[in-house]
Amino acid sequence: MNRIIKLFNIKYPVIQAGMVWCSGWKLASAVAEAGGLGLIGSGSMYPEILDEHIKKIKDSTDKPFGVNLPLIYPYADEHIKVILKNNVKIVFTSAGNPAKYTSTLKQNGITVAHVISNVKFAKKAEDAGVDVVVAEGFEAGGHNGIEETTTMVLIPLIRKNVNIPLIAAGGINDGKSMLAAFCLGAEGVQIGSRFVASLESSAHRNFKQKVIDSGDGDTMLMMKKLMPVRLLKNKFYYDVLDAENKCADAEKLKELLGKGRARKGMYEGNLDEGELEIGQVSALIKEIKSAGEIVEDIINEFLVVRKKISELDFTG
Amino acid sequence: MNRIIKLFNIKYPVIQAGMVWCSGWKLASAVAEAGGLGLIGSGSMYPEILDEHIKKIKDSTDKPFGVNLPLIYPYADEHIKVILKNNVKIVFTSAGNPAKYTSTLKQNGITVAHVISNVKFAKKAEDAGVDVVVAEGFEAGGHNGIEETTTMVLIPLIRKNVNIPLIAAGGINDGKSMLAAFCLGAEGVQIGSRFVASLESSAHRNFKQKVIDSGDGDTMLMMKKLMPVRLLKNKFYYDVLDAENKCADAEKLKELLGKGRARKGMYEGNLDEGELEIGQVSALIKEIKSAGEIVEDIINEFLVVRKKISELDFTG
Repeated sequence: MNRIIKLFNIKYPVIQAGMVWCSGWKLASAVAEAGGLGLIGSGSMYPEILDEHIKKIKDSTDKPFGVNLPLIYPYADEHIKVILKNNVKIVFTSAGNPAKYTSTLKQNGITVAHVISNVKFAKKAEDAGVDVVVAEGFEAGGHNGIEETTTMVLIPLIRKNVNIPLIAAGGINDGKSMLAAFCLGAEGVQIGSRFVASLESSAHRNFKQKVIDSGDGDTMLMMKKLMPVRLLKNKFYYDVLDAENKCADAEKLKELLGKGRARKGMYEGNLDEGELEIGQVSALIKEIKSAGEIVEDIINEFLVVRKKISELDFTG
Repeated sequence: MNRIIKLFNIKYPVIQAGMVWCSGWKLASAVAEAGGLGLIGSGSMYPEILDEHIKKIKDSTDKPFGVNLPLIYPYADEHIKVILKNNVKIVFTSAGNPAKYTSTLKQNGITVAHVISNVKFAKKAEDAGVDVVVAEGFEAGGHNGIEETTTMVLIPLIRKNVNIPLIAAGGINDGKSMLAAFCLGAEGVQIGSRFVASLESSAHRNFKQKVIDSGDGDTMLMMKKLMPVRLLKNKFYYDVLDAENKCADAEKLKELLGKGRARKGMYEGNLDEGELEIGQVSALIKEIKSAGEIVEDIINEFLVVRKKISELDFTG
């Protein structure tokens, strides 16, 4: 039996990524109802807002859900308290040292996943006692690893190096790419960008529209001297590009970024001045759909493509 | 029937990439004998050397083979004459405008493939009359596209945008990744790095050893202001990194690169001063094998993993 559906007690091994400004209780609840695992993205919430989202999702579904917690987030300690107080059962940690909270979470009966992008941190996560690693490739949106290893290479590499269950992230948006990730050794997939362009996502409609309008080459990994982040090309992106072409250091990039850029872009819909975080796979997303329909489409296509692949005749 | 095996009259849709300094007649012949398509990499050969390699491969095998021709290569025009004179049946063009030679080649009864890394050039190749496109992702070794689109995203994107047969390249080295590429819409795979570390490759033994010793994060796409190229980390790489951190422009990078760096590294085995071109997938390659064994391993694993995937039970 698939270890991911067993671990999380879900129907399909499809995880909706916990994304800043885009994934509140509404999206996570819709994904949970559709049989996947929905995650509340706590990295853009104050502790009292996270508390509210957890209470609302519990009122809206009996299905399992989780919270994504970026460990470098200033409110991480307070978020942990909110998570424990509300008896949340599943936590995905990212952007930080998995040794930091894993034992506290595990002692409280929480299933812990940790997001990594290289072999070193995958092993570290396994050693820290996490239940599952999420391996995220270079093509993913938002913050990203410095090694720039793509999903195609990262998944088999992590599979070779750890024994705990493995979820693939980065470049996955449909049944074809889910199936490809399984061929590479994944037992589940984490999908972000596709759910940004869903009816239930809290992304601003301007941002959703820009995502479905984008094509290949419209995102780029930027700010590598500060903290690598994949951005959709807009005025802010070109400002960063210009600064980087002039050799801006981490300090200058930090200044240029300022405060509240992500909120401004993704939540308030300011497409010029805001920071727009999305994966390369946005080039393949052409329609805003309900989260339930997205999950259903993914599973249906997975099955159709698998059947087609099983019938290939070239090997005789 | 698979369109790639039909088009090239081969047993398996596995193409060995035509790589500078690594793929002469010996490697291409061994791959051809094993049922794949071997390509002579003409981008590091003078016309008389290419002529010699074509004559030798014809003496060594009756199976189909091809020549890879980088269109920006100074000897491209003379190489075309050598190709026509020797009645070569298959040509893979890359790094340039597919409209340049395609009609000449087609008029001479040659099957033409063209390597692209974005939608625009894929359409251009189709319009120019090429028979098949090779879509190469960001994780690939050597020269690479400016959009940085990974194989996971590029393959379905190209599949959506052109109708001619599609070969996937970048991050593919075994049966798992070949199967993943097929799930994404490819009908064949082009494999480079795995064949660099083969007995028949003309890469220097020092370079082969460094490839199998490398791990994740050991290659990086560099010299983006000149012409993006994925390099294995060595002294030369760190010299480039240092120059780029100091904001070197195209002119400075060209000067730093100088002449003969690729030969020095990959063919002469100077691991400090040479340019070492390899894909991210080198992190997964741990053994030097014969090309025939590599082809056999790929096909066997493809079948084993396909069977395993077909038996997954999570969807009920």
